Amino acid sequence: MLFKQMTVIGAGLIGGSLALAVKRAGVVQTVVGYGNKRGDLHKAASMGAVDRYFLTLPKAVQGADIVVFATPVSAFEPIAAAMLPYLAEGAVVTDVGSVKGDLVYKMESLLSGRAFFVGGHPMAGSEKSGIQSAVPTLFEKALAVLTPTSKTDKKAIEKVAALWKGVGAEVVKIDPVKHDQIMAVVSHLPHLVAYALMELFFHPRLIKSDMLSFAAGGLRGFTRIAESPSDVWHDIFQFNKAAVVEAIDLYQETLEKMKKAILAAETGGQRGNTLLKRDEDALLKILNNAKTVRQRIRP
Amino acid sequence: MLFKQMTVIGAGLIGGSLALAVKRAGVVQTVVGYGNKRGDLHKAASMGAVDRYFLTLPKAVQGADIVVFATPVSAFEPIAAAMLPYLAEGAVVTDVGSVKGDLVYKMESLLSGRAFFVGGHPMAGSEKSGIQSAVPTLFEKALAVLTPTSKTDKKAIEKVAALWKGVGAEVVKIDPVKHDQIMAVVSHLPHLVAYALMELFFHPRLIKSDMLSFAAGGLRGFTRIAESPSDVWHDIFQFNKAAVVEAIDLYQETLEKMKKAILAAETGGQRGNTLLKRDEDALLKILNNAKTVRQRIRP
Repeated sequence: MLFKQMTVIGAGLIGGSLALAVKRAGVVQTVVGYGNKRGDLHKAASMGAVDRYFLTLPKAVQGADIVVFATPVSAFEPIAAAMLPYLAEGAVVTDVGSVKGDLVYKMESLLSGRAFFVGGHPMAGSEKSGIQSAVPTLFEKALAVLTPTSKTDKKAIEKVAALWKGVGAEVVKIDPVKHDQIMAVVSHLPHLVAYALMELFFHPRLIKSDMLSFAAGGLRGFTRIAESPSDVWHDIFQFNKAAVVEAIDLYQETLEKMKKAILAAETGGQRGNTLLKRDEDALLKILNNAKTVRQRIRP
Repeated sequence: MLFKQMTVIGAGLIGGSLALAVKRAGVVQTVVGYGNKRGDLHKAASMGAVDRYFLTLPKAVQGADIVVFATPVSAFEPIAAAMLPYLAEGAVVTDVGSVKGDLVYKMESLLSGRAFFVGGHPMAGSEKSGIQSAVPTLFEKALAVLTPTSKTDKKAIEKVAALWKGVGAEVVKIDPVKHDQIMAVVSHLPHLVAYALMELFFHPRLIKSDMLSFAAGGLRGFTRIAESPSDVWHDIFQFNKAAVVEAIDLYQETLEKMKKAILAAETGGQRGNTLLKRDEDALLKILNNAKTVRQRIRP
């Protein structure tokens, strides 16, 4: 048994799934839920994710040797400040937020002297949301990224790593700021790019027609993003502002490059009256590059 | 029996699937394949998609009362010009290309006096490719868009419509230029946006690291685009240049708008120390808009 009592702050997909997973794996004895929606907490209890729940922080954190933040990231600091007086000395505090960076340093400093903070980001489950979608298998074979700083307690790091390994995740450690730069490109930008495709349909200069009735495979794949919880993604974009905006800038340059390649693209067919393999122009090179990126992504 | 002999130009996913589908539906007596790769044609024959095949046009089109172009669009005009002397008087010629517009008018003018051209675009199957992926069910419940002009023969339109209905598709008719404007937004831009996300990893200013080993759900959904055939998409972007570039421009404006919204986003948590529902700022509005777009897309 790694921990006697885990208090999960926020009863959503990730918090709920972690609660189910630690109980199934037997790495935590008791799980306590905290949140602001009684219905969600009740659901978490009826699913067997939490043993008991509270809508007030003092009761929720009492006796916890580990506290896991699983709310949108903007709630971390105010909640951490509010729970501080009630937190057991030497408790481990971690989180599942998609943004680390400054937030990790702020949480560390806020809790220092009382509890040990270890930033964490299990990379699992982005589209489904809510306690009703929680499953104990969510983290199996997922990457659990931990973001210790030079001040992070070594034992606390290992305890949190053991927790994630206990629920089947693979643990990697990385600098908080580097985490955010990487996520800006491989996760936050892809979400933003999909959201922008949806938002395009509100552009005042877009021709008004029954355009969406023609939306087949091309657009449909992007619409799943609409199921991601808006509040979570609002906070991700906002808290990782600098890296996300930089990623957008690079992406816009890439779009400009593709636009130029399209404008310069040659007609393959003009070079012969058969289905000759054409020389690679800039556009074809870009399209072929896509395959090599796919091959570099872990399966 | 709608047609005695259908000659399919190009033995890929769409041509092969149509061949399988018309034979299963019993709307065509004999299917002849034409292409430039003997292996693909042989495969098409062994799958029962084509009854016979040729690597030379004169033999392939001989006796056909319908010819279907199913190659990348850049090959349409040279092949149409080359087959013209061998085409039966009054044959119906159609295609499955994702770009219509000018190409429809050019094909119409090229074939006029000898055959009846009807532009077509069955909206099915964009990621898998090749004859090996062909299935007779590909067009069931798909949208088959026909793009007649003011000069298109009415009987030919109805014959092509009957062909698509015969294989289970729903037929809609639309102006060729309008088709391209709509597709630029609902299909071509989404593909381009995904290709650009792949190409971003070749950007010289992107921090070099093992970034792609962290690519989880966010990026993975976009990588399927890498399986789309590059030559087909090269031609789509090139032939629909004007509308695609316009769509990119509107999309770039949308990205700018999102960038501004991100920079202006407020911290929800600063307004209270509980999980209060925050007022909608511009960023949250954009993210919530995505849901309403999804609801407007046909299932």
